[in-house]
Amino acid sequence: MAGPDETSAEERLIARHFRPLATAPGALGLGDDAAILTPPPGCDLVLTTDGVIAGVHFFADDPPADVARKVLRMNLSDLAAKGAAPAGFLISLALPAGVEEQWLAAFAAGLGEDVRRYRCPLLGGDTDRTPGPLSISVAAFGTLPQGKMVRRSTAQAGDCVIVTGSIGDAALGVVLRRDRDLAARLRLPEAMRAHLAERYLLPQPRNDLADAVLAHASAAMDVSDGLAGDLAKLARASAVAAEIDVMRVPLSPAARAAIAAEPALLETALTGGDDYEILLTLAPDKVAPFRAAAARAGVPVTEIGRIVAGQGARFVREGETLQFARPAYSHF
Amino acid sequence: MAGPDETSAEERLIARHFRPLATAPGALGLGDDAAILTPPPGCDLVLTTDGVIAGVHFFADDPPADVARKVLRMNLSDLAAKGAAPAGFLISLALPAGVEEQWLAAFAAGLGEDVRRYRCPLLGGDTDRTPGPLSISVAAFGTLPQGKMVRRSTAQAGDCVIVTGSIGDAALGVVLRRDRDLAARLRLPEAMRAHLAERYLLPQPRNDLADAVLAHASAAMDVSDGLAGDLAKLARASAVAAEIDVMRVPLSPAARAAIAAEPALLETALTGGDDYEILLTLAPDKVAPFRAAAARAGVPVTEIGRIVAGQGARFVREGETLQFARPAYSHF
Repeated sequence: MAGPDETSAEERLIARHFRPLATAPGALGLGDDAAILTPPPGCDLVLTTDGVIAGVHFFADDPPADVARKVLRMNLSDLAAKGAAPAGFLISLALPAGVEEQWLAAFAAGLGEDVRRYRCPLLGGDTDRTPGPLSISVAAFGTLPQGKMVRRSTAQAGDCVIVTGSIGDAALGVVLRRDRDLAARLRLPEAMRAHLAERYLLPQPRNDLADAVLAHASAAMDVSDGLAGDLAKLARASAVAAEIDVMRVPLSPAARAAIAAEPALLETALTGGDDYEILLTLAPDKVAPFRAAAARAGVPVTEIGRIVAGQGARFVREGETLQFARPAYSHF
Repeated sequence: MAGPDETSAEERLIARHFRPLATAPGALGLGDDAAILTPPPGCDLVLTTDGVIAGVHFFADDPPADVARKVLRMNLSDLAAKGAAPAGFLISLALPAGVEEQWLAAFAAGLGEDVRRYRCPLLGGDTDRTPGPLSISVAAFGTLPQGKMVRRSTAQAGDCVIVTGSIGDAALGVVLRRDRDLAARLRLPEAMRAHLAERYLLPQPRNDLADAVLAHASAAMDVSDGLAGDLAKLARASAVAAEIDVMRVPLSPAARAAIAAEPALLETALTGGDDYEILLTLAPDKVAPFRAAAARAGVPVTEIGRIVAGQGARFVREGETLQFARPAYSHF
């Protein structure tokens, strides 16, 4: 029996684990109904939201620190692809009864690591108990010079198509985690299996490349629902077509080995999602300065095709256009 | 078998039902990874987030239009209490498999009604399928002059305590909806039962009062977790005490009738939550101009007590301080 002047369990939990992440003055120490965020003069605020649900976007027994970092990084990846610098985020947690303080402490510790790494402070949040699976939603905010957000809809015929990092690792990682028989059949060395699993567990958003995207890209988006589907979205939004040389799509050694053992996994890699790389288009004269900026940022980038007049995204291998059975990850 | 250039079911659903609500240019027709929001020069952006889960915050068979309006209004209420004008929102929907397009169409129609009523456009969102209950999270944004957000932590000894509207209706409404025996015992006229039920189903946030709060309040917050608990939070944040005259707490005729029939329901009314009224403190010389502004806005306001030195929130009735068994709604 607590008096009305005592703090609730919810307030204590937030104070203990989440207040240390609320480093921005506008977060008011998470002690108010709302937070304050003011973009620097001459800047726009860029807003995005993305969430995860246990059993859908992560495994319920994944380490809580990685779950925290994954959901934040999914949003940071959107900011990076738009050319924005992180400014902060709100988080909504729906926790089933079984989630105890120890889980939350580890979750907050992981979140805090990325708050510092990406300089993206917690601005506020909302916690509830749910009879359903653990669910987390993040709304993230970034800043960039007014009117400069890099869009999906501004690719031009003649542009080059570039993608960061490597494609398909996370999709292969989750397939192998779910299908132990397939994993055994592929006979991948342990280091390769671990690489693919890690790429699913913890995205590596390309925020170090945001300035270069802002400076040079004609259009960009992050690759979260599979390269094939996301490229199709970009082409449709821009009213152009994209032609991709499948042999140039960057694959990690682990993905190459998996696909060599089971060629059908190429489709998984190209359509499976969870890459959190940046897909961008560039006027041809921007390719060299962009490559130089990417090298300075330490982010590998690969030219994989061209924007042309027309519509659709074609993935061409040795003269033949691939047909995908399931072209993109869809939430429905 | 869809080609990679075709739209997904998710994209079609969003385009059909939600794109019409994305009336701000910065929403980019919901066709990008992110939205753009830029507060007017000299303004801060105020951020808040709140969500609902079927079976926790609403009944799964509530009309979808009301569910949509409730979750948006919960957030609008926070903006109103901070003195901010609505600027837009992001929405995250986690939908169980049984939710069909008809439900979503009605949900979006309800949301659209409030988008227009409160001039709060949809800026973006995220949809997922969940194995759990239907869950909705909103992050809402408002604007106000820089540095002027009304906080919880700035009440002063000597201030008057004021609350808008009436307290306890929603808490009584949900108790009566859950407990048919109690409802029968109280013998409330049908119109009163309907009033209480409606106040739970659909909050009436006090956004018309935001300017007056901004101009006059020394501190404010919205009443969402019960007057007793929320006042205790305000007092604690401000390092003061609050003394409330229980006889002056504004009750609707329906709430009065329910409490007259079952006196224990007074505690439900004062601690139960879901009021979405504004609780504010005012220097004594601000009371008259605030009352005048509230009258112009058509929002009833009632002075219920005083801020004094000390700590805690005391609810006093005929000289005796009430002791509550469960002082505030807590999510844990």
